[in-house]
Amino acid sequence: MVVVMKSGASQSQIDHVVKLVREIGLKDHVIVGTERTVVAVIGDDRNKDRSRFETVDGVEKVVPILAPYKMASKEVKKERTVVPLGGTLGGKVGSQKVGVIAGPCSVENKAQLLEIAHMVKEAGAVGLRGGAFKPRTNPYSFQGMGEKGLELLALAREETGLGVVTEVIAVEQVKLVAKYADVLQVGARNMQNFNLLTAVGEEGKPVLLKRGMSATLEEFLLAAEYIMSRGNGNVMLCERGIRTYEEYVRNTLALAAVPELHRVSHLPVVIDPSQGTGKSYLVDSMCRAAVAAGADGLIIEVHNDPEHALTDGAQSVTPQQFAEMMRAIKRVAAAVDREA
Amino acid sequence: MVVVMKSGASQSQIDHVVKLVREIGLKDHVIVGTERTVVAVIGDDRNKDRSRFETVDGVEKVVPILAPYKMASKEVKKERTVVPLGGTLGGKVGSQKVGVIAGPCSVENKAQLLEIAHMVKEAGAVGLRGGAFKPRTNPYSFQGMGEKGLELLALAREETGLGVVTEVIAVEQVKLVAKYADVLQVGARNMQNFNLLTAVGEEGKPVLLKRGMSATLEEFLLAAEYIMSRGNGNVMLCERGIRTYEEYVRNTLALAAVPELHRVSHLPVVIDPSQGTGKSYLVDSMCRAAVAAGADGLIIEVHNDPEHALTDGAQSVTPQQFAEMMRAIKRVAAAVDREA
Amino acid sequence: MVVVMKSGASQSQIDHVVKLVREIGLKDHVIVGTERTVVAVIGDDRNKDRSRFETVDGVEKVVPILAPYKMASKEVKKERTVVPLGGTLGGKVGSQKVGVIAGPCSVENKAQLLEIAHMVKEAGAVGLRGGAFKPRTNPYSFQGMGEKGLELLALAREETGLGVVTEVIAVEQVKLVAKYADVLQVGARNMQNFNLLTAVGEEGKPVLLKRGMSATLEEFLLAAEYIMSRGNGNVMLCERGIRTYEEYVRNTLALAAVPELHRVSHLPVVIDPSQGTGKSYLVDSMCRAAVAAGADGLIIEVHNDPEHALTDGAQSVTPQQFAEMMRAIKRVAAAVDREA
Amino acid sequence: MVVVMKSGASQSQIDHVVKLVREIGLKDHVIVGTERTVVAVIGDDRNKDRSRFETVDGVEKVVPILAPYKMASKEVKKERTVVPLGGTLGGKVGSQKVGVIAGPCSVENKAQLLEIAHMVKEAGAVGLRGGAFKPRTNPYSFQGMGEKGLELLALAREETGLGVVTEVIAVEQVKLVAKYADVLQVGARNMQNFNLLTAVGEEGKPVLLKRGMSATLEEFLLAAEYIMSRGNGNVMLCERGIRTYEEYVRNTLALAAVPELHRVSHLPVVIDPSQGTGKSYLVDSMCRAAVAAGADGLIIEVHNDPEHALTDGAQSVTPQQFAEMMRAIKRVAAAVDREA
Repeated sequence: MVVVMKSGASQSQIDHVVKLVREIGLKDHVIVGTERTVVAVIGDDRNKDRSRFETVDGVEKVVPILAPYKMASKEVKKERTVVPLGGTLGGKVGSQKVGVIAGPCSVENKAQLLEIAHMVKEAGAVGLRGGAFKPRTNPYSFQGMGEKGLELLALAREETGLGVVTEVIAVEQVKLVAKYADVLQVGARNMQNFNLLTAVGEEGKPVLLKRGMSATLEEFLLAAEYIMSRGNGNVMLCERGIRTYEEYVRNTLALAAVPELHRVSHLPVVIDPSQGTGKSYLVDSMCRAAVAAGADGLIIEVHNDPEHALTDGAQSVTPQQFAEMMRAIKRVAAAVDREA
Repeated sequence: MVVVMKSGASQSQIDHVVKLVREIGLKDHVIVGTERTVVAVIGDDRNKDRSRFETVDGVEKVVPILAPYKMASKEVKKERTVVPLGGTLGGKVGSQKVGVIAGPCSVENKAQLLEIAHMVKEAGAVGLRGGAFKPRTNPYSFQGMGEKGLELLALAREETGLGVVTEVIAVEQVKLVAKYADVLQVGARNMQNFNLLTAVGEEGKPVLLKRGMSATLEEFLLAAEYIMSRGNGNVMLCERGIRTYEEYVRNTLALAAVPELHRVSHLPVVIDPSQGTGKSYLVDSMCRAAVAAGADGLIIEVHNDPEHALTDGAQSVTPQQFAEMMRAIKRVAAAVDREA
Repeated sequence: MVVVMKSGASQSQIDHVVKLVREIGLKDHVIVGTERTVVAVIGDDRNKDRSRFETVDGVEKVVPILAPYKMASKEVKKERTVVPLGGTLGGKVGSQKVGVIAGPCSVENKAQLLEIAHMVKEAGAVGLRGGAFKPRTNPYSFQGMGEKGLELLALAREETGLGVVTEVIAVEQVKLVAKYADVLQVGARNMQNFNLLTAVGEEGKPVLLKRGMSATLEEFLLAAEYIMSRGNGNVMLCERGIRTYEEYVRNTLALAAVPELHRVSHLPVVIDPSQGTGKSYLVDSMCRAAVAAGADGLIIEVHNDPEHALTDGAQSVTPQQFAEMMRAIKRVAAAVDREA
Repeated sequence: MVVVMKSGASQSQIDHVVKLVREIGLKDHVIVGTERTVVAVIGDDRNKDRSRFETVDGVEKVVPILAPYKMASKEVKKERTVVPLGGTLGGKVGSQKVGVIAGPCSVENKAQLLEIAHMVKEAGAVGLRGGAFKPRTNPYSFQGMGEKGLELLALAREETGLGVVTEVIAVEQVKLVAKYADVLQVGARNMQNFNLLTAVGEEGKPVLLKRGMSATLEEFLLAAEYIMSRGNGNVMLCERGIRTYEEYVRNTLALAAVPELHRVSHLPVVIDPSQGTGKSYLVDSMCRAAVAAGADGLIIEVHNDPEHALTDGAQSVTPQQFAEMMRAIKRVAAAVDREA
């Protein structure tokens, strides 16, 4: 970090900053400029509380130099991480082939789930999404089928070979969900539920980590770091739209996150164009754009009867639309030297 | 809700919307305008998934009319809620007197906590804040003292009479924290941790609920509704700054939330100017502004040695600064016919 | 619009709203629901001040139904608009071929401009960008070469056949810039400089209109409407990134604007990945994503010596990088049945 | 600025940065840390394009140290600026007394303006606001009375002694508006209309500069710098709400801007709670909060018949409400050792 002193800071104020730097085991390097004096702090200050320096007399601001995450960083691991999606189809995210995960927002019943699962598999998906435990904004809304939903997901895997990706919303459910699922999804609202991150880190199954709706990329990577620091390196980073002032979409899909995350991290990046727009008519073009931008995976909401979907009807595409989208996705993937 | 049809929607499309409205037990009222046909939906649709209508052919958009929360609403309860803060000082939030809660970001040790507790009590605080379990963005940062910290908080209450307000970050901690605390704080990162909201709702102790950093007021009130729907009506709504593009503050403190929440809800409103700005030099003026805007309570970070605080040094004021601030707060409170 | 009355609004309050509706020449339709009474307003209220209804006693809120723009809307003109870029290469934006505009942020001197112009033409660009009048945040920064820069742009057109796209920042410059340029660019900071919009509308040359950095799509289309309402239908809508809380980019490029603008408007859409990210290393992938999303044009900053660029060095790519990008863009364009 | 090299940057990359630093006449100071090498740049780089360094091989990022504005800064001028509002009442902004400016959004006719002017004067206002040239988002909306409106404003000044504050929206209007007005208002949409800023700087009359709806404070102060650099030091900074994801308000009023602007600049700060919320029922509490936060002035929309206002009815208060608000404002002002 660099501690910038105020214009006219006194020598004793500078000395005091130096003393504080040394107290926490780091080295100082004082630079007297024509406009400001700055104290450059030398050493690894990733785990130090930089904010304390801001409160010191004579300090104008503190500028961090090092990103605080390590295991998620390309500095620590150069080769890209490939995460298996489970099932018998051998789906992966992070390899040359874009891994497509599709399915309903919520598991609603056996007929619904199996019909959708077969159709998305036919169209080229390798993973099946479907919520059994639903984090709902409204306490009076449908909260998911619970374990019964997990059983149906496992059945759908048996019938289709698709890997099962499903959300876990509480520490006490981790064991249960892990019993049925191939990939544990941590939702945007739980991206900073640190106990949950720790629990899925300890469980060990691959994790699809969604970016919080107003998380910075640094916070996102620190959330991944929580999971990885417990020994679980199989983390997929999922951009699902951020909250902005825009009102024609539910969220603003920030696709530049794809190349930026690839630049700083070895973890694969998945795009969720369904949550990322909230409008089924925008999903198709955002899938194509995501693949063109270099996304390693897609997760897409598909429902066989969106008008009667229990959740998220507005952003679900039909299996027929999905099949058509997959044809377009494959063409774009080929144009950027990938497959789908 | 009102379902707005596209320009040129066909009669059969309109009929189909009407059919879907009736399917969910509501009444329709079709209005043929000169520019658009709209289907007004009559009845309580608060718990219906409105989004499904957006996916129907011929529909342009769906406009909600009713706010989805009930128990948090002034429509259901006209008289304002007053929440007790515990301890022997009789502190309350929601009454004519502004309830001030103060203390360190984290409990660090006995000497630190007791010194601060005595000083903030002297200055006029009625509640003591202090984190024993800390939700930290960085997995390598100090995570709090745990139960030992709770014991120290209880000791400080015994010595000073201040009510104890402390954060609970996981369902499995609720019982433990409730054993020591007077008020359970749910942090911004957990505002949509619905299992935690349910658990603190069932526990029954007063709750200080912080607004998520990008939560709308509707989402904020629905989070309160989760707690209230479990039988716990003692909820304080705490505005602590929202995430915007502004970069001179850690968060943008949205003080218009105070009169707006008072307009739509009977729950008392607390302002956190420490988190809400992230800069100790902005806390004083934001305390005064909050009280002038009608806030029912304040929660303020105070540390006896900010330069060595383990967490959030940059936004902590000293006990001496706090005492001075309290004198200013009392004057402003009097000017708006309240006390502090 | 729909005027939603408060719960418990009196009959005389409802009658008063009805009276106000009729005063402005519209029809009312009162719907008494179980929870709320709403007054549906029938007729074209696009140019009425809806906000006045919000202030009326007993009114809870006013919900607009009709978008306020007309000429920019697909309701008024179904066929897509194709805008010519000028020069002798026959470049267009809005046709099957994606129109690529490239060049330096600022015109700096003859050698620089001609070298870049020749190289981007070789690589496949059909338009040349380059600022002669620069809107600079800092009053002490380089403000552009002025008319001398315009002369160089015209010279570059003569030598290469590229159409010239350059920014006009003041009403009094419109005539001068139009003398040299093929396309007048209105920058993001001037998107709501209504006098300038009117002036370029009256001038008649094609306009590249940049989205304001926090403009909604409705405001963006209303800005286009200003130009079109003066008889100039040759407007290109340019998404150049919006201001959000994200800090790894200069702006967040909102690519879902492409399909959404295509859905509601007949005007072509151009993407600016240079401004839209602010980082040269993100430009390549965002160009590909933009084309995959359906963009009709791209505008890209290219500099032959970014380290010594007078403006925007950080987001400029070299001519060599640009040539490589164009090859990738052509492949993606083909994959979505277009050319580039 | 500090140029941070990538981990593993080569010596020749570092040397190249040093060379570039020297090329622009500044000094370098290389610090080899354990994790990164940084090149501290010594000297005044306020007017240098820092972004060019970002494009250099081996550079990770560039961190600015100095704020780019000078004349607006407290480093250059310690004593606070007091701006006269004109008229015969001696109103000022920046002195111990809070200067209140009130009046209609638009001048509509003589009777309306004079009635409002007399009533706001009675209640304690010292300035009269009222738009004669209106920047309207919608080209079909009322655009203001033009010069006729300016004449009415001058008449109202004659009758009441109030200083006249009115908006100028184009360079070519500056002379005309200055002929009638005491204070030239530059609106939020024109905060970065640099030609207009220059023109009002050269004109010399006091300026009320509104913050752009997504401007940072640095951009805001640079806009003030444009005006001041032309010799006009009488600039009032007006916070009028910023654009965020919040939807219950038209804008989010960022009151922490008051103490922050006071901390870094000597210019007085005015708050616009009408634009800053967009809801008349929020104006009262935000006025009180603004004064408690230390605002030097307020600008408030008052209309004698909001239901029939031609513009901004929803955010206008009545003269009766204004008079009551002024009584509350005076009490809060006294509580923070000021008057109103």
